[in-house]
Amino acid sequence: MDQPTGRKRKAAWNIPATRIAKNTHNPIRKIVDGMKLTPNPSKQMIALSIGDPTVFGNHPLATEITDAVIKSAKSEKNNGYAPSVGYEKSRAAVAAYYTCEEAPLTSKDVIFASGCSGAIEMCISVLAEPGQNILIPRPGFSLYKTIAESQDIITKQYNLLPERSWEADLDHMESLIDGSTACIVVTNPSNPCGSVYSQEHIHDILRIAERNKVPIIADEIYADFVFPGEKYFSMASQTCDVPILSCGGLTKRYLVPGWRMGWITIHDRHDIFAQEVRQGLTNLSQRILGPNTIIQGALPDILKLTPKSFFDETIASVKKVCDITYAAMTTIPGLKPVRPSGAMYMMIGIEMDKFPKFKNDVEFTEAMVTEQSVFCLPATAFGISNFFRVVLTVPDDKMITACERIREFCATHYCTSNGNGVCEIKMDIHEMETIPVAQTA
Amino acid sequence: MDQPTGRKRKAAWNIPATRIAKNTHNPIRKIVDGMKLTPNPSKQMIALSIGDPTVFGNHPLATEITDAVIKSAKSEKNNGYAPSVGYEKSRAAVAAYYTCEEAPLTSKDVIFASGCSGAIEMCISVLAEPGQNILIPRPGFSLYKTIAESQDIITKQYNLLPERSWEADLDHMESLIDGSTACIVVTNPSNPCGSVYSQEHIHDILRIAERNKVPIIADEIYADFVFPGEKYFSMASQTCDVPILSCGGLTKRYLVPGWRMGWITIHDRHDIFAQEVRQGLTNLSQRILGPNTIIQGALPDILKLTPKSFFDETIASVKKVCDITYAAMTTIPGLKPVRPSGAMYMMIGIEMDKFPKFKNDVEFTEAMVTEQSVFCLPATAFGISNFFRVVLTVPDDKMITACERIREFCATHYCTSNGNGVCEIKMDIHEMETIPVAQTA
Ligand SMILES: Cc1ncc(COP(=O)(O)O)c(C=O)c1O
Ligand SMILES: Cc1ncc(COP(=O)(O)O)c(C=O)c1O
Repeated sequence: MDQPTGRKRKAAWNIPATRIAKNTHNPIRKIVDGMKLTPNPSKQMIALSIGDPTVFGNHPLATEITDAVIKSAKSEKNNGYAPSVGYEKSRAAVAAYYTCEEAPLTSKDVIFASGCSGAIEMCISVLAEPGQNILIPRPGFSLYKTIAESQDIITKQYNLLPERSWEADLDHMESLIDGSTACIVVTNPSNPCGSVYSQEHIHDILRIAERNKVPIIADEIYADFVFPGEKYFSMASQTCDVPILSCGGLTKRYLVPGWRMGWITIHDRHDIFAQEVRQGLTNLSQRILGPNTIIQGALPDILKLTPKSFFDETIASVKKVCDITYAAMTTIPGLKPVRPSGAMYMMIGIEMDKFPKFKNDVEFTEAMVTEQSVFCLPATAFGISNFFRVVLTVPDDKMITACERIREFCATHYCTSNGNGVCEIKMDIHEMETIPVAQTA
Repeated sequence: MDQPTGRKRKAAWNIPATRIAKNTHNPIRKIVDGMKLTPNPSKQMIALSIGDPTVFGNHPLATEITDAVIKSAKSEKNNGYAPSVGYEKSRAAVAAYYTCEEAPLTSKDVIFASGCSGAIEMCISVLAEPGQNILIPRPGFSLYKTIAESQDIITKQYNLLPERSWEADLDHMESLIDGSTACIVVTNPSNPCGSVYSQEHIHDILRIAERNKVPIIADEIYADFVFPGEKYFSMASQTCDVPILSCGGLTKRYLVPGWRMGWITIHDRHDIFAQEVRQGLTNLSQRILGPNTIIQGALPDILKLTPKSFFDETIASVKKVCDITYAAMTTIPGLKPVRPSGAMYMMIGIEMDKFPKFKNDVEFTEAMVTEQSVFCLPATAFGISNFFRVVLTVPDDKMITACERIREFCATHYCTSNGNGVCEIKMDIHEMETIPVAQTA
């Protein structure tokens, strides 16, 4: 059994990396790394590209959050190994926080992970074999593809419809399902769209899952991160029949992405996951042995003590920037913003035929950096073309400046063509500048 | 491309877990879960099984370590996403701490991971394709097997020799290498053995790697955790030719396993990993986006400010318990302890023929729980039989009690057989008890 088979000594050092290592790549990185991002030296760079609410320092943390961590560290009670699924009392705190009559949770339904990314990876890994397929949204967060492709899992992208506030194209979604479909990934609220699904739309998706007996991975990292007046419904609260793995964490709503505190909540009223999937998730949690224990130890306090005003302030600030941006973008000929209802992003359509100088959204956003030092992610990074995404967690003044620059950029390049690719009407930039840049809420 | 292939709707919910989820299991858990661990109700349980130095509370943390974390949390500078390989300044701190003339390091040679486990997983994943094999020590830390098997990587175990203080059987090691051998895993200092390799033995292993052009994964989580008078040499410091991925972290020496702060250091003087492996590791780091940033932020202070006295005290305390245990075990007929030189474990051989009541080390340790409420891990958990492992991070008094109970247990069951499986001589337990239980250093 331990005897060498096919013994053959190598003559020289030649150490390739494995397929999985080569195939693990973030498509965003690949696109961004391929762009010539040389800002205009006379204008300070404004990055509207990074989905990290901490980068500009304009969203202060609630002191209760930091205090809980300091208390946990000082106690020296949370330095040892935790169970790989997480401390019981911390999982109980997550269960207590998210449980509701329609979707009851106890600690045994909660498994900790390294951020929401880790939770998503575990969920995809437990449900989808290599060669099977998973349904993911287009446009969508790139991680699903990264994880799936590195494991030879096939991704099929169902369209989201900008004209319907990025609701899923239900017919398209269902048409993609086959006997090898392991799950449907639903992102709500959405990155990159900022959309928040209505109860009806969630029911529509659930009916498809139920009809086809396909479980759902609900990426709910932006749970409750919705603008005033909007209402967020978790997928699990809307069904008794479809088994759901919901992925969440502290990352976005608590503004601490670096902490890598994520979790899976298991919703499974008919014990469909009881046979194998629960144990499979527990097994997979042994690969990293859970997230940092100081944060785990602080979690009950964080969930209990963080005041509502903290969330309200964060959301009000994002909403304000959203309104500034939307008001500006709707007045820029050639751009078509789609109004978000939550999360921290806005997608802006580009009427590419009005900008004949640029082949696509990548060239468009690239030139915006070169000329205006404003960097927005081209939607190609999310699987569709002719849009770009702006992040709404930047300070107001930065966003106002960015909007002005985007306006100038568009004015410079906007033209209507005579059909032969020759510009007929160049826009008058001075006329444009009379349009009010911001009508804040 | 998005059209359904083999469309077939499932009639009923039937959601299996994937192979990888099923195959990810810790063999220790499997063995322990299979044991009947019912302690003797009249004796308080003493667990000598858990490799977590924090469980008994007898190893206080240096205040500098906790203070660094509190400072990092208070600064609110370390809450955002870090680069997936880790903060530059924190990686530079690790490089500065471990660099030496023989094995120079800069920040670009350091990649962060979720504990040393995460580092090991990344290293195995970047080097070994499914179907290839890796060489791992027997007895050895079970994680190597867990990771490999979940990815269909074959493990081949090279023997460690108790009669040579658990040095590797070099001939056996080399005999296992074939054209599909992706790497050799070397654990030094060792869990479960507590062995620390001499410079000469490291050279011997390196010669095998060099001759066969097989890179080394050096699991050096117990680096510098050696008893006074012993000397630790990192694998990388002993070679210019063999490319080495060393795995380390704060876990053991800093007594904070729950923090999940691990790292890979890349040692590659001839740029053998430069082609693909470095990029592959960077790619894989995107799967978890690095360990917790508060700890990353505290790392430079932790490495710089933790006083030498903290390590000295920890090691002195482990050494004392080691001496207590070794002195006791050598005087118990039927047991053959192997003296450790570092780490926090001791392996104790069982002359099974002297304990005919028990089939193997699992039954032996199981009965020790039932009768004496002392739990030691059977070495079957580490791939060999007829040994058990004790953890040396317990308080002195607990270990003294445990040794007395082990003595009583052995006395009760020891017998020499007449060859027909019938006991001839039962040991006199009272005679045994005159043997001094502890001769501490
Ligand atoms: C939709 C979505 N899911 C998951 C994540 C990852 O979250 P985490 O940082 O907790 O891994 C993000 C981060 O941007 C996201 O936008
Ligand atoms: C040899 C060895 N390597 C790695 C590890 C895992 O360390 P970590 O907790 O940092 O993942 C252990 C833990 O016991 C160990 O004994």
